[in-house]
Amino acid sequence: MIRIGIFGATGYTGLELLKLLGRHPAARIAWLTSESSAGQRFGDVFAVPPPLGRQTLIPSAAADCASTDVVFCCLPHVAAQTHVAAARKAGARVIDLSADFRLRDAATYEKWYGHPHQHSELLDEAVYGLPELHRAAIAGASLIANPGCYPTSIILGLAPLAGAGWLAGTIIADSKSGVSGAGRTPSLKTHFVEANENLSPYSIGRTHRHLPEMEQELGISESTNQRIIFSPHLVPINRGMLSTIYVSLPAGVTEGQVREAYAAMYAAEPFVYLLPKGQVATFAHTANTNYCAIGLTFVPDTSTLIVTSSIDNLGKGAAGQALQNLNVMFGLDERTGLI
Amino acid sequence: MIRIGIFGATGYTGLELLKLLGRHPAARIAWLTSESSAGQRFGDVFAVPPPLGRQTLIPSAAADCASTDVVFCCLPHVAAQTHVAAARKAGARVIDLSADFRLRDAATYEKWYGHPHQHSELLDEAVYGLPELHRAAIAGASLIANPGCYPTSIILGLAPLAGAGWLAGTIIADSKSGVSGAGRTPSLKTHFVEANENLSPYSIGRTHRHLPEMEQELGISESTNQRIIFSPHLVPINRGMLSTIYVSLPAGVTEGQVREAYAAMYAAEPFVYLLPKGQVATFAHTANTNYCAIGLTFVPDTSTLIVTSSIDNLGKGAAGQALQNLNVMFGLDERTGLI
Amino acid sequence: MIRIGIFGATGYTGLELLKLLGRHPAARIAWLTSESSAGQRFGDVFAVPPPLGRQTLIPSAAADCASTDVVFCCLPHVAAQTHVAAARKAGARVIDLSADFRLRDAATYEKWYGHPHQHSELLDEAVYGLPELHRAAIAGASLIANPGCYPTSIILGLAPLAGAGWLAGTIIADSKSGVSGAGRTPSLKTHFVEANENLSPYSIGRTHRHLPEMEQELGISESTNQRIIFSPHLVPINRGMLSTIYVSLPAGVTEGQVREAYAAMYAAEPFVYLLPKGQVATFAHTANTNYCAIGLTFVPDTSTLIVTSSIDNLGKGAAGQALQNLNVMFGLDERTGLI
Amino acid sequence: MIRIGIFGATGYTGLELLKLLGRHPAARIAWLTSESSAGQRFGDVFAVPPPLGRQTLIPSAAADCASTDVVFCCLPHVAAQTHVAAARKAGARVIDLSADFRLRDAATYEKWYGHPHQHSELLDEAVYGLPELHRAAIAGASLIANPGCYPTSIILGLAPLAGAGWLAGTIIADSKSGVSGAGRTPSLKTHFVEANENLSPYSIGRTHRHLPEMEQELGISESTNQRIIFSPHLVPINRGMLSTIYVSLPAGVTEGQVREAYAAMYAAEPFVYLLPKGQVATFAHTANTNYCAIGLTFVPDTSTLIVTSSIDNLGKGAAGQALQNLNVMFGLDERTGLI
Repeated sequence: MIRIGIFGATGYTGLELLKLLGRHPAARIAWLTSESSAGQRFGDVFAVPPPLGRQTLIPSAAADCASTDVVFCCLPHVAAQTHVAAARKAGARVIDLSADFRLRDAATYEKWYGHPHQHSELLDEAVYGLPELHRAAIAGASLIANPGCYPTSIILGLAPLAGAGWLAGTIIADSKSGVSGAGRTPSLKTHFVEANENLSPYSIGRTHRHLPEMEQELGISESTNQRIIFSPHLVPINRGMLSTIYVSLPAGVTEGQVREAYAAMYAAEPFVYLLPKGQVATFAHTANTNYCAIGLTFVPDTSTLIVTSSIDNLGKGAAGQALQNLNVMFGLDERTGLI
Repeated sequence: MIRIGIFGATGYTGLELLKLLGRHPAARIAWLTSESSAGQRFGDVFAVPPPLGRQTLIPSAAADCASTDVVFCCLPHVAAQTHVAAARKAGARVIDLSADFRLRDAATYEKWYGHPHQHSELLDEAVYGLPELHRAAIAGASLIANPGCYPTSIILGLAPLAGAGWLAGTIIADSKSGVSGAGRTPSLKTHFVEANENLSPYSIGRTHRHLPEMEQELGISESTNQRIIFSPHLVPINRGMLSTIYVSLPAGVTEGQVREAYAAMYAAEPFVYLLPKGQVATFAHTANTNYCAIGLTFVPDTSTLIVTSSIDNLGKGAAGQALQNLNVMFGLDERTGLI
Repeated sequence: MIRIGIFGATGYTGLELLKLLGRHPAARIAWLTSESSAGQRFGDVFAVPPPLGRQTLIPSAAADCASTDVVFCCLPHVAAQTHVAAARKAGARVIDLSADFRLRDAATYEKWYGHPHQHSELLDEAVYGLPELHRAAIAGASLIANPGCYPTSIILGLAPLAGAGWLAGTIIADSKSGVSGAGRTPSLKTHFVEANENLSPYSIGRTHRHLPEMEQELGISESTNQRIIFSPHLVPINRGMLSTIYVSLPAGVTEGQVREAYAAMYAAEPFVYLLPKGQVATFAHTANTNYCAIGLTFVPDTSTLIVTSSIDNLGKGAAGQALQNLNVMFGLDERTGLI
Repeated sequence: MIRIGIFGATGYTGLELLKLLGRHPAARIAWLTSESSAGQRFGDVFAVPPPLGRQTLIPSAAADCASTDVVFCCLPHVAAQTHVAAARKAGARVIDLSADFRLRDAATYEKWYGHPHQHSELLDEAVYGLPELHRAAIAGASLIANPGCYPTSIILGLAPLAGAGWLAGTIIADSKSGVSGAGRTPSLKTHFVEANENLSPYSIGRTHRHLPEMEQELGISESTNQRIIFSPHLVPINRGMLSTIYVSLPAGVTEGQVREAYAAMYAAEPFVYLLPKGQVATFAHTANTNYCAIGLTFVPDTSTLIVTSSIDNLGKGAAGQALQNLNVMFGLDERTGLI
């Protein structure tokens, strides 16, 4: 059995993780932390059936990392760093779902997140936890930086083009996300009456914090005159994410070549699937799963390719991917607990 | 022109009132108050078109009641009392949308709202602002206690039976409400992800504060062995309200007599309409209007009548009804600004 | 391995069943039928990931029941009878999700469903598939009549009272259901714009076809002056169901006795759980699960008990329950594939 | 009074038009047609309050165009042509909400709509009914081609750029629409369970029929190497529309110049408003109104301008705009019945 601790279990990512782990034959929950709900049972915080709700939440100070094989960290960025470092020191392998270890460069981190990194010494050992790009490194890693939801949908949607060297100029990624991506802390923006029957762009252009990890993983940089314009939109749905991505292909690159590149990269992937020609990805293609579905639409008489890339923001965009990483790290069938 | 001031303009009731007043030919807004947003324009607080957004919000301390003909009070109960009293003292007529002046008995108020009434001297002049029951008194009133949303749907649904003396024993009122009824302050219960794709009963039985005003207006009391069991439910909809009411009719009362009683009471009402036999009321019947729609379903071989009563909780359940009261008070066509 | 055939696989019940069976370690799909989509793959009809979508749909005429161990029938009533009879003749055990074999009395069936029963000879061997009531009979049954969704929520909500002989007079069951319960055939009532931001009662009183199976299973009959008034409501949610049930308890029955009766009946049940005192059941308690959650609210100073009973209409209300029945029939852990 | 007839009154556009006309002081409904519901009252088809529901629907063959001042045609394209021509022949002025008279060129119409135009003789007199572009011509017009919803949001979002000659190359318009835009005929795509909690791109690239009218009105043509890539998305909302538009500005054009161009064009417009710097348009900005709200976001260090343009698809995108055109045609205050 794999003994598991979870820091920050009472957000939507923690809830989803616990549901998935409940079906995983090799997982055993050792402890769950919550500062605000310490002393309560998990079932006091969420309306879950008894088997999921029995565990009593403990404060993070009481968490014994040494007694676990792996620690999931579901805390917000900055807060995550300290606990990740402590868990590593105690010898546990760590899957961090925050943004704290996704950027390889501490200066870039500070620029985007507004805080100097407190544990930059761990950046070297951190592996960006997208199995489709870094499977081998994940298998041997002690610290996984689980990707953000938007980056997962966009990187998987563009990786075959990046691999072939076909990304150039300005790429437009217009993304739509369900509200669970904004977390569980009440706010006016996520108040039911404000979000329902509404749709809102936010942080559009080049201001959203998920941008640098996309560009890092796709090898995009302004120095080569490449950039992503990224526009997230909040849609009145609990969970789901779609990125509609507009790419201007280099002259001479054919539809056939592009389709082949995608097929080559994803044919053996258990959780990425290409839609047949003529189909576009929708939220429904991946709802409540760990899959990413990708559609390719070529605009006739132009060089424009439109990639539609769908994931569940709590599945492949967070907890599902974290569990997939766990499976890779522990040499299990990658689909365990996820199908 | 009727000069109007609004205390507490930045909730959903205030917003709806402002939209309705914007179409009212005789209304002129003098001032709008907000403690938390004082100094901002209304358009900074809500995404409204420019004509609605220009007015600058002022703190209630700066509100000049003496320069208005009527003051709407959209503050929460308790907070409302002080400002209602001040407005009355300044000579303004008042339409109070809180619960503070709905109950005729100060002791009952204290029992249900947990605070001694600070201005019980005004209870005598307050008129319960349901025009279908109290039109004449409203016309001459200086202080209107605008009814709650649940009570409006249930009182209108039962008033013809009460009038005929046909209410007896236990009446079950199972009500369903949109989320705007819970106000604009963010909370976990009204967080999008919690409320969406969910449906929750709350304060069921005889615990919700809207109960005593229903019983007061329907002349129901435990002393005569009558009572309402009232079960509100939160549904993932912005606005709308339906009460499904189960009544056991006295022996000998026929369907024909009941239909006649409803027709007699509501035939001339501008904002209550009876649905044809065989139809039930739905949210859609009254959405975004000041109407109440009522359906009557008799259960064959039983004495049970099921009343379905639909209103828009922000319309006839709050701001629309307040405007209807204004029209009655100022001798205008009752439908002005409401159709 | 249990070889499984499914008649009528392209409705929401079929989809849910296929998803659940995909996680069941002992299930192997032999064939799926669809008249309208025969020749297409399941993945052409639903946006499902590849592993779920590969199977090609066949017309029911081509289905070989003899090669299966169990046949699920997801066809509408009337249409179901013929295929159930054929499957039984071929020696397959059958779990029928239609209404065709739920009523023990052929005359009652004809009265409510408007068609004479074509295979009343099978009514005797049919077992009503609610494991909490009929587990032993289900284990040995060759034909299971899987309960309706509304009946499941209401029967489980009332069974401990029925068992104790505490049901009397008129019981009010006010139920709320997600739209998937209405099936996948487009109609004006289930058109997005009509159903969204709306809530509609329908077939209220004593007219809905789910009524007779509730009364049959609870032993309620008009001859003893007992009856259920049943009012379903359509709510703008994909899946979920809540019944708010009002019961007048016999004089002398205490809250403690009632709680004990529920605890005694459900303590060992894997899929029914009682909520602590003070809590009510919501859709969220059972969403996407096979659970039924039950809350008990006693109204002080009255004899009224309000039972709130929540299930997922596609889970415990249809496909989940069907799989639970399969597990019981084949001697497996009842929770297999369901947790 | 303006005597009004409406062809095809029982779709969502007809419903919205009737609601708006109910508040218009100069409008009098002469007749409403519906083939499928002829003989029924409007209130039998929609859950509307009595004053809106009384009119009996007639078949179009019985419609007397000569007795009206203006005819609104809410029929689908192709079907609309015949009735528009008949109304014109009878001397009525016509506002056609279909696509039949939007394209000035009959060959382009045939290419995109797949039918030869049957009344191309009327194309010359037809005026594209966007008051912000063609107010003077609308005032004197006998036939108005009311714009499509997507084109309204995109043309208004880009017109100041087009006017200044700043549109070049490929423009990306990623649009999101509520479901009422798809009409009232039930289909699998608009079935509640399929559309809810989902988001779907459709007809993306250069295949949607609204594309040619956008390009016509913006003076965009492939001959000058300009083109719009247009990607509509269906979102689970009743009404609302947002276009997120990505434009690459010519070298040297500054943010200040662009803001000035928008301000100059829209300062006096009653129904278009610019959002302050730093704000983006959302559905909420225009819900249930005839407004268009526009936000301008400049992406630093790039030449990219992101325009967010919001309308209500049934308001400024259909019925509201039709009424605005009526007001212009009859010399009324343009805002009559619309504020």
